Amino acid sequence: MLDLLQQLGLALRIPASFVIIEFVGTMAFAISGIRMASSKRFDWFGALIVGMATAVGGGTIRDLMLGVSPFWLTNKIYVICCIIALLWVITFGKYLIRQHNTWFIFDTIGLALFNVIGIEKTLQMGFPLWTSIIMGCITGAAGGVIRDILINEVPLIFRKEIYAVACIAGGLVYVACFRLFGLPAELSALFSSFTVIVIRVLAVRYHWHLPVLKGDES
Amino acid sequence: MLDLLQQLGLALRIPASFVIIEFVGTMAFAISGIRMASSKRFDWFGALIVGMATAVGGGTIRDLMLGVSPFWLTNKIYVICCIIALLWVITFGKYLIRQHNTWFIFDTIGLALFNVIGIEKTLQMGFPLWTSIIMGCITGAAGGVIRDILINEVPLIFRKEIYAVACIAGGLVYVACFRLFGLPAELSALFSSFTVIVIRVLAVRYHWHLPVLKGDES
Amino acid sequence: MLDLLQQLGLALRIPASFVIIEFVGTMAFAISGIRMASSKRFDWFGALIVGMATAVGGGTIRDLMLGVSPFWLTNKIYVICCIIALLWVITFGKYLIRQHNTWFIFDTIGLALFNVIGIEKTLQMGFPLWTSIIMGCITGAAGGVIRDILINEVPLIFRKEIYAVACIAGGLVYVACFRLFGLPAELSALFSSFTVIVIRVLAVRYHWHLPVLKGDES
Repeated sequence: MLDLLQQLGLALRIPASFVIIEFVGTMAFAISGIRMASSKRFDWFGALIVGMATAVGGGTIRDLMLGVSPFWLTNKIYVICCIIALLWVITFGKYLIRQHNTWFIFDTIGLALFNVIGIEKTLQMGFPLWTSIIMGCITGAAGGVIRDILINEVPLIFRKEIYAVACIAGGLVYVACFRLFGLPAELSALFSSFTVIVIRVLAVRYHWHLPVLKGDES
Repeated sequence: MLDLLQQLGLALRIPASFVIIEFVGTMAFAISGIRMASSKRFDWFGALIVGMATAVGGGTIRDLMLGVSPFWLTNKIYVICCIIALLWVITFGKYLIRQHNTWFIFDTIGLALFNVIGIEKTLQMGFPLWTSIIMGCITGAAGGVIRDILINEVPLIFRKEIYAVACIAGGLVYVACFRLFGLPAELSALFSSFTVIVIRVLAVRYHWHLPVLKGDES
Repeated sequence: MLDLLQQLGLALRIPASFVIIEFVGTMAFAISGIRMASSKRFDWFGALIVGMATAVGGGTIRDLMLGVSPFWLTNKIYVICCIIALLWVITFGKYLIRQHNTWFIFDTIGLALFNVIGIEKTLQMGFPLWTSIIMGCITGAAGGVIRDILINEVPLIFRKEIYAVACIAGGLVYVACFRLFGLPAELSALFSSFTVIVIRVLAVRYHWHLPVLKGDES
C-alpha cells in the first residue's frame, strides 16, 4: 500500500511522503488512547500501553487472524511513534483541547489509511473480498475497542460514533473500484480513503448516529 | 464433525440436515449477545459486533491457539447467521421473552455441538486428549466471556451458570467413549452432546451452581 | 532457559532444581488471580479460569504473537499448577494474608523468570533485541492485565505498581550483559532476574510509583 501510494505520489509529482501519513495517524491514535488513560489517572507507563494498544491493536488482531506476526514487532518506528505521542501529551497536555480539531483530522486520515492497509494486506494473502472489508474495519476500529476495555469503559464505537461503519463503507468503495470497475489499487485506495474521511467528518459535524437497538427489557 | 454427523444421519436414515444445527446454534449464540447489547443501549452496529463475538469468539480463540486461521474468515455463512440474528432481534424484539425457552434450547444444543467441534478439531491436529477437552470448553464458552467483556460486565459464567463445566463433562464423556471404549466418533459426539444438554438443562431447572470461593478479605 | 539454568546449577554444584522455580512462580501468579476472583465472589470454576489466565495469559499472548502454539497446550504441568493453586486457596483461604510475604516473594521470582523466558524465546526465534524486551515484559505482566479485565477492574499495573517497568529494566540488563558485554546466557539471565527482583522489592518497600499522567480534563 505504501509503495503504491509512493508510486502514485511520484506519478502525480506529489512529494513521495505518504509514509508520513501512517506515522502521524499512528500518533493520532496513540494520543486518543493516552488522553483517555490520563482521564483515568493512569501512570506514564499505563498511558503508554493504552496508547500503543489503541494505535497498533487493530493491526495486531488482523495479523494474528491472518496468521502472520504483528507488523510492529519488526519495525520499531511504531513503538517510537507511541513514545513520541506520550511525550507530546506530557508536554502539551493542557493545550490538547485547543489542538482537538487538528488531531481529529489526523485520526480520521489515519483511520482511512489503516482501513486500506488492512484491506490490501488481506487481499494479498488470498482471502475473499468480504473478509478483506471486515479486516479493514478491524484494523481501523479494533484498537479503540481494546483501549476502552483497558480503561474499563463500554466501547465508544458501539454506542456513539459512526466509525466502524465508515470503514465498511470505505471497504465497499475499495472493492467496487478495484474489482468491479477495474481501477488500479492506488486509485481504489484514494477513493476508499476519501469515503471514510467524508463520512466520519460529516457524521461528527451533523451528529449522525446509528439507531439504538431496542430489545426486550431482560 | 459435520461430515461425520451427516454420515450418521444417512446411516440412521435421519435427514442429512445436522449442518442446520450449527447455524441455528450460531444464531442462538448471536441473539444472546445482541440481547445483552440492547440492554446496554448499543446501536445496531455495536449489537452486531457483540453478537458476532459471542457466536464466533470461542472458535476464534481456539483456532488462534491451534495455529490456524479463524474458521469464519473463509465461509461467510457465519457472518450471515449473525446478521439474521440482528434482524430477528430488531423485528421480534418485544417477543423475545416469550421465545425464551426456544432460544435457550437452541443455545444449549449449539453449546453441545460447538464443544464437540472444538474437541474433534483439536484431536485432528494432534494435540493431547486433555488439551482437546479444554479447547472444546473454550469453543463453547469463551464467546460468552468476550461478550461480557465487551458490554463491561463481570463474565456471567464465572459466577452464576453451569455452562463451561457442562462442556468439560461432555469432553470427558467424548474422550471416554472415543479412546477408552473405542466407540466411533459419531457416537462419541452424540453421547457427549447429550451429556452437555442434560447437565445444562438440569442445572437451569434445579438452580444448580458451583460453590462460591471464599478467600481472604483482601 | 531452564536447560541453561540447570547446566549453570550443575556447574555451580547447586541442585538442578531450578525448574521448580517456574512451577512455584506459576502457582504464585495463579494464586494472585484466584484471590482477586474470590473477592468478586466468583465460583470455583471462575476462580480457576482467572488463575489460569493470570498464570499463563502473558506467555499465551507472547506465543500467539511469535506465531507458535501456546506453551501450556502440550505440557499439562501448568494446568496442574493452577488446579493446585485453587485447592490451596480453598484449603488455606483464611491463612493467605499471613502467607502474604511468602507469596509476594514467589510472585516476584516468577516475574523475573517469566521475563527471562520471554526474552530468550523471542531472541531464539530471530526477532530484534528491542522486541525481546517487549515480549519479556508481556510474558511477565500481561497475565495480570487479563486477570483485571476478567474481574472487570482497571488494570492494577497501569495505575499503582512498578511491575512492567521492572521487567523492562531486567530486559535492558539482559540485553546489555548478553550482547554488549558478551556474557553467557546463564549469567545474563541471573543478572536480569536480580534486577527485576530488587526493583520490585524496593518499589513495594518504599512505595515507589511512576508519575500520574496529567492530561486535559476531557
